[in-house]
This record gives sequence, C-alpha cells and structure tokens, in this order.
Amino acid sequence: MTDVLKQFAQEHVEKINQEMATAIQAHTTEKSLLESMSYSVEAGGKRLRPLLLLATQEFLGKPLTKGSYQVAAALEMIHTYSLIHDDLPAMDNDELRRGKPTNHMVYGEGLAILAGDALLTEAFHVVGEGELSDEQKVWTLTNLAKASGSYGMIAGQVADIEGETKSLTLSELQRVHARKTGALIEFAVAAGAMLADATSEVMAALAEYSHHFGIAFQIKDDLLDVIGDEAVIGKKTGMDAELNKTTYTSLLGVAGAQQSLKEHYEEAIAIIERVEKLTNRENAGAVLKAMIQTLID
Amino acid sequence: MTDVLKQFAQEHVEKINQEMATAIQAHTTEKSLLESMSYSVEAGGKRLRPLLLLATQEFLGKPLTKGSYQVAAALEMIHTYSLIHDDLPAMDNDELRRGKPTNHMVYGEGLAILAGDALLTEAFHVVGEGELSDEQKVWTLTNLAKASGSYGMIAGQVADIEGETKSLTLSELQRVHARKTGALIEFAVAAGAMLADATSEVMAALAEYSHHFGIAFQIKDDLLDVIGDEAVIGKKTGMDAELNKTTYTSLLGVAGAQQSLKEHYEEAIAIIERVEKLTNRENAGAVLKAMIQTLID
Repeated sequence: MTDVLKQFAQEHVEKINQEMATAIQAHTTEKSLLESMSYSVEAGGKRLRPLLLLATQEFLGKPLTKGSYQVAAALEMIHTYSLIHDDLPAMDNDELRRGKPTNHMVYGEGLAILAGDALLTEAFHVVGEGELSDEQKVWTLTNLAKASGSYGMIAGQVADIEGETKSLTLSELQRVHARKTGALIEFAVAAGAMLADATSEVMAALAEYSHHFGIAFQIKDDLLDVIGDEAVIGKKTGMDAELNKTTYTSLLGVAGAQQSLKEHYEEAIAIIERVEKLTNRENAGAVLKAMIQTLID
Repeated sequence: MTDVLKQFAQEHVEKINQEMATAIQAHTTEKSLLESMSYSVEAGGKRLRPLLLLATQEFLGKPLTKGSYQVAAALEMIHTYSLIHDDLPAMDNDELRRGKPTNHMVYGEGLAILAGDALLTEAFHVVGEGELSDEQKVWTLTNLAKASGSYGMIAGQVADIEGETKSLTLSELQRVHARKTGALIEFAVAAGAMLADATSEVMAALAEYSHHFGIAFQIKDDLLDVIGDEAVIGKKTGMDAELNKTTYTSLLGVAGAQQSLKEHYEEAIAIIERVEKLTNRENAGAVLKAMIQTLID
C-alpha cells in the first residue's frame, strides 16, 4: 500500500468504525443481536467502499462532516450484511471469512439472518437520522436502495448463483459483477461526489472512474483465486475452478486478465487526471489513484 | 367483517397491491427473484397494516394520494419480507402459510433469503422515489427503519426466539410483542397521521389507539392458536402449547385473555371517539373502529 493511502486510511478508518458502532449500539436492544451484528462489523476488512466515498469528497475539496461518516458507515453496514447472508449454508456455505469463523458458525443461522436484516435496516436508519440535509438524505437513501436492492447487488447475487450452473460470455460476466460488486463501489464514488456538490460533468467522469474500479476489483479477485496466497488473503483459493465458475481468468487466462486489469487501471488514472484539470485541483486525486493502484500491486 | 370495512377494503386493497407490483417490477431484473418476491406478495393476507395507514389518513380528512399508497406498499413489503425470513428452517421452519407452501418450500432457501432482502430494500426504494415531499420521505424512511429494525420488529423476533426457552411474565410478553408485531402497526397509524398533517395532540392519541390495537391483535393471535379453526385461519393450531411458549392464554387463561382483549378494544374505541370530537369529524372513525372490531368478532 502506498504511503498516501496508508495515511488516509489511518486518518479515517477509526472514525468510520466509530460511526458504525454508534449506529448499531444506538438502536439495538437485544444483547445477542448486538453481539452478532458487532462480530461481523468488527471482523476487519479494508473499508474500501467508505474510504472511496470519503476520498472522493475530499478530492473535490469539500471538508468531511459527521454526515459524510454516517453515509460511509451505512454503506459499510450494507456491505457487511451482504457478506453475512452470502456466507450462509443456503448460499455460498462458507465457514471462514478473513480467517475467522463466519457469523452463522458462531451465532447460528437464525441469528445470522436477523443480524444481516438488522444491519441492512439500520443502515437506512443512520442516514435517516443523520446530520445531512433532507435533500441529501433522500438522494442517499434512494441511491443506496437502488445500488443494494433487486436492481443492484441482490440482482448480481442471484445472477451469480444461477451463473454457477452455466458458462457465461465476457459481457454476461461483466453484467453480473457490475451489479454484485460494482453497484456499491459506484454508489461510494457517487455519494462522495454528491456530498461535495459536484457538477454533472464531474459526476459523469467519476462514474466512469468507479466503473473501471469495479471491473478492476473483480478481475483482481478472480486472479487472487488462481495465483493468490491463502495465508495472505484469508480464504481458500482455487474455489472458482473447483465450482467450474466462469471468471475473468477462465475466459482470458491469467496473462489476459492481468492485461485487462492494467487497462482498466490506466483508464481510471486518466479520468482522475482529467478531473484534476477540470476542477483546477492539481494532484488532489492522489488517494483515488492510490486506491486503484492497490489492485495492480 | 362489517360492511363499512368490507367496502373500505374493496376500495383500497387492489390499489395497494398494484403499487407493490409496480414497485417490485420497476427494479427487479432477474426473473427468478421477481417470481419469488411476487409469490409472497401475492400470497394473500388482509393488508391490515396498509389499510390501517390509509384509514387513519382518511379519518383525519386528508385525501389519499399516490404517495399514500406508496408508503402503504412499502409497509406491506416489509411485513412480507419478515414473514419469508420468519418461515425459514433456521427460524420457525414453517412449510405452510395461509394454506400455501412457504417461499423457501417453492424457491429454495437461498432465493427465499434474497427475496426477503430485496423486499426490505425495495420498500425503502419505493418511498425514496415516491410522490412525497422530501420531509415526508425522510420521516417515513427513518420511522420505517426504526419500527422494523433492531429497535423494533427484528428485536422482537430475537426476543421471541429466545423467549421460547423460558417462561415470561405478562410485562415481558408485552415487551416482546410491542416490538415484534406492535412496532409496524404503530408505524401504520403514525404514518397515516403524518401524511394527514395531524397535530401532536391527535398524533399522541392515535399512538395510544395503535398501542391498544397491537396488543389486541396479539391476544387474538394467541386465542386463535387455542380455539381457532385450522381450516379458517390456514395454519396449524396448538403450536404454542406444543412449543411450551408463553402466551396471553397461557398466562391469563382463555377467559382472561378474552376479557383483556375486550378491554383493549374498548379503550381503542374510546380514543377514536375522543379524536372525532377533537377534530370535529363526527363518525369519521367508523373504519378505524371496524378494524379493531374484527379482533373481537
């Protein structure tokens, strides 16, 4: 990880975590439910999506507020709920995530389902009660629902499960991932831009950046499953091949996937440089550049 | 059912169903997901909560709008998601609901979990995109999340599951149900009052009405499990006793539970009559009175 990104993460991750803890503790009355929700929220993770949101807002020169961290927390809570439900026996049936037992292995399936439901619901709650204007709240709630619902992340999860039984073309594969992982990544950048009152031209350019980011992220994920180190990434590798899943590496080969990843990286960097010129903010995009750079390191 | 209620339901249920169908179809791209969501939404039910909402708004003399039906639809979508998840093998493990196979019996557990997640998320989506003012949207989204989240319905579900293994006092039992079923019923009435721009005095009185309604509703449910007819209510009776669950009938006996139900009914009716006087709207509360009357018939 580059120094600029390390510093940015050090500055903000603790505040994101604090906002999530506050949101959960404020409204959760049942001890077991609170434990189950907190277990997954505290299980680590790079906080990629909330950091993308905050980095985008800062990039555009608008100071971060408590409201920014609340939207960032809501986004990570939705990501966390999706992991809990994805890991369930009826879905991917994973016993480990990031090297730790998954939620249902610790708390049982019933409570894991409810903890996921609660994280999803409380994500909307924290935004609704957040320190934001009514207009910002409505934008956030609507777009977060769109990105995570049956037009976005959930659609992608359904398509992913159904895709396991057949081979996909490259464009079908991209369509699955654009929604399964892409939608929340695109929301992160769009929300940061909205909070910074970006012009529609900047909004559109950053939407392109986040689109390339989402694809690059998925190619990297597929590559790690083939050439990654289990001890480093904290989960079993070789699973995609075992399940006979269509991936970027199965379609393009390892070298082809690496080449495609590099192309999306370069396009994303070019966009940030273009927005820097557009907004007269030289080098302001260093963190956003560094974030996508982690995918090709 | 009284004529006044029958007429009210005939006038509005179709519009509620239409708004739900529109909300789901507008954003659901995957065929299997759409089928699974629609199956449970179309599985019937009295539409008690959305009708309570609409009846409250009409009671206060404010014409219903498309926005009213959208909030009503969101509320019923959340109720429906909660039934899908409650029926799962890891929860109540029910194979039948309203005389039909439960969602996971038809579509499998994985898709049933995702259909529930999607109904919950799309409920927020339809309000966010609804024909309402920003202020109304924020009120609705925040209070709907509060009523259905880890402070409301989900907390009640957790407490209910944990309560199965121990006996509860009457006040503990009421605390479980105030959240498990009461929170959404109270939201229904509060949302109708909000959409009608009710004064805080009327809001407070109607909150009391909905509180009595919620308790009466649960007592009725417990009574049906003891003295109900399986063919009429569409599910197995005697389950509470079999599971050794604390209920109103186990604590108060059948006659005691019936007496308590009657008291809550009478208090609720008295409140509606008080609000009729307060707002100078004689007999305007006929539907709200008829709705709680169904619980003692």
